[in-house]
Amino acid sequence: MTGYRQLDTAKARRFCEDVFQSYGFSDDESAKITDALIRADLYGIESHGVQRLIRYHNEITAGLVDVKACPQIERETAISAVIDAHKAMGQLAALRGMNLAIQKAQTSGCGMVAMRNSNHFGIAGYYSGMAAEADLLGICMTNSEAISVPTFGREAMIGTNPIALAMPAEPFNFSFDAATTVVPRGKLEVYKKNGNPLPEQWALDSGGHPCSDAAEILHNIIHKLGGGIAPLGGAGEINGGHKGYGLGLIVDIFSAILSGGLTSNHINITPGLNGICHWFMAVDYGIFGGKKEIKAGLSAFLQELRESKKAEGQPRVYTHGEKEAELMAARINGQIPINEKTLTEMREIAAKQEVRWIF
Amino acid sequence: MTGYRQLDTAKARRFCEDVFQSYGFSDDESAKITDALIRADLYGIESHGVQRLIRYHNEITAGLVDVKACPQIERETAISAVIDAHKAMGQLAALRGMNLAIQKAQTSGCGMVAMRNSNHFGIAGYYSGMAAEADLLGICMTNSEAISVPTFGREAMIGTNPIALAMPAEPFNFSFDAATTVVPRGKLEVYKKNGNPLPEQWALDSGGHPCSDAAEILHNIIHKLGGGIAPLGGAGEINGGHKGYGLGLIVDIFSAILSGGLTSNHINITPGLNGICHWFMAVDYGIFGGKKEIKAGLSAFLQELRESKKAEGQPRVYTHGEKEAELMAARINGQIPINEKTLTEMREIAAKQEVRWIF
Repeated sequence: MTGYRQLDTAKARRFCEDVFQSYGFSDDESAKITDALIRADLYGIESHGVQRLIRYHNEITAGLVDVKACPQIERETAISAVIDAHKAMGQLAALRGMNLAIQKAQTSGCGMVAMRNSNHFGIAGYYSGMAAEADLLGICMTNSEAISVPTFGREAMIGTNPIALAMPAEPFNFSFDAATTVVPRGKLEVYKKNGNPLPEQWALDSGGHPCSDAAEILHNIIHKLGGGIAPLGGAGEINGGHKGYGLGLIVDIFSAILSGGLTSNHINITPGLNGICHWFMAVDYGIFGGKKEIKAGLSAFLQELRESKKAEGQPRVYTHGEKEAELMAARINGQIPINEKTLTEMREIAAKQEVRWIF
Repeated sequence: MTGYRQLDTAKARRFCEDVFQSYGFSDDESAKITDALIRADLYGIESHGVQRLIRYHNEITAGLVDVKACPQIERETAISAVIDAHKAMGQLAALRGMNLAIQKAQTSGCGMVAMRNSNHFGIAGYYSGMAAEADLLGICMTNSEAISVPTFGREAMIGTNPIALAMPAEPFNFSFDAATTVVPRGKLEVYKKNGNPLPEQWALDSGGHPCSDAAEILHNIIHKLGGGIAPLGGAGEINGGHKGYGLGLIVDIFSAILSGGLTSNHINITPGLNGICHWFMAVDYGIFGGKKEIKAGLSAFLQELRESKKAEGQPRVYTHGEKEAELMAARINGQIPINEKTLTEMREIAAKQEVRWIF
């Protein structure tokens, strides 16, 4: 890959842990944050991996993330909780949230946790995957800064608002994790960098018309001049854009409305507060039947999908989580590709935080 | 409208009730089935309204729907149940399922019901809406005959698999109800009728390539020759088709995998059995905070969306359920438009079932 360097995975992990410790996180906390971060690179989701270190650095040093924050349960039943994250590091708050949902599912069959006042937590699929590792069905959602334009609108009102769902299966778990926008913001940045025009359905200009100029769209998003990314299904109703808009809105209902927090359109607006909201849910699928039989049923269905007839010229039909599992197996004891620009940022952070440069 | 006749809503209702009674359904059952059917026409969802009467007629007289079936609870906890519908009329089975989910949510905070061996139940939003009417958050999903092609595939493996979610709000409830395919089959039928080419992202031919010929696609679907409708996000990955594919798959997990029933790719294959599976869920959102405050929070967010800046040339930004609520208000004590072809089918059913023709 041009512009990329292969870093030893274990070394990258150690470096990130050192960086997080330098802000005052404990060894254990630093290892946890790093594990979520590195997982994105193992899965091939570069946009949410070590590449984000600079964003976390900026948010921690600006006080948007409170290193000493202790998320608090505000309201609780046997199957539910509301947590105020008090501006904690997103990954730590999310671990607290999903672990609580898992506990409740293990004792009561189901656990639902709505969380407010948190921060960016990495990939949603990391947390839904925790439930699957505990032999449960897991769901995770999060809202985020408004970047997506409602159908017939021209003002970004909803975040990329991903939905993640994981469930145990053989030979690897089902793991769906997708933004409810047609693409995440990172994809536009790649098109801008390469100077390529955007596909027609991806973005809207400040007047609400489809626009293929990535630089213009990103400029408008940053300066809140109008327009933004289209919801899944694209602009208008013709290809179902109103469905993606509705799915993004649903993510705001679970994460922000049920937690009493900020909806996407209010995030990153109050000085000193990101205010991101999450949703964590775990279900013990054993309440619906024998776990062995249900897991076998899902595994068989996924296998049928993978074995279904391929489009001409396509070698494989995938199920969700398959590509990520394969990539992780190859990278976990090996190397991860890191962008040269990211490496430069890492070196700058190392200098600022007086962390040893080990590459 | 050309080719349409306005029927008095009350009369249309009475006619449908008479028809269902003619098959042996009780007065009460006939009224319930009819209410779900007519609601689709009130909402403007013609494809799922009285237009479907002929399909129900065919399925009932062919024995695919068992008029005397009694859906049975097979497994139950305070928050969950699995029901075998035993080939009951989809609407009656679904009412049983959602009412049980609502009861459980009212006593335990949450109710989740997975159902197998059912039939087509009309619009999913009718059942999620029941939960909202009971001041709960409601979710309903259903699988259906495979018509959608997985990303990189050329074989229909997943149904239109809609997801519906409703939650109380002022001045009208939030009500999302959408197929996880880019469009439902009925839209292709309209394009075929009018001889118009399909938009590029809608369908795939038997080789798995994008295809704009509605007649060819429908022919291939009916004769299972390969190809079908694209998932939400279109063909391939460029506009997120793998996301719609995953959402459809998730509907099969909740409805078919958790109920131990048939996944989309096995529906309508065994002679004498449709085998459609549903998912019903209700959540008492009061477990997350004051119901008044949460409802006010959602109402305010929806209002912000409706008041957000419009794309040039667009008079309104809608929230989900708004168009349907407006149309229903206009039609409920007035008239509904019925296609001439549907009228002809209704007249034939009336003759066969010896039901009085009252129009």
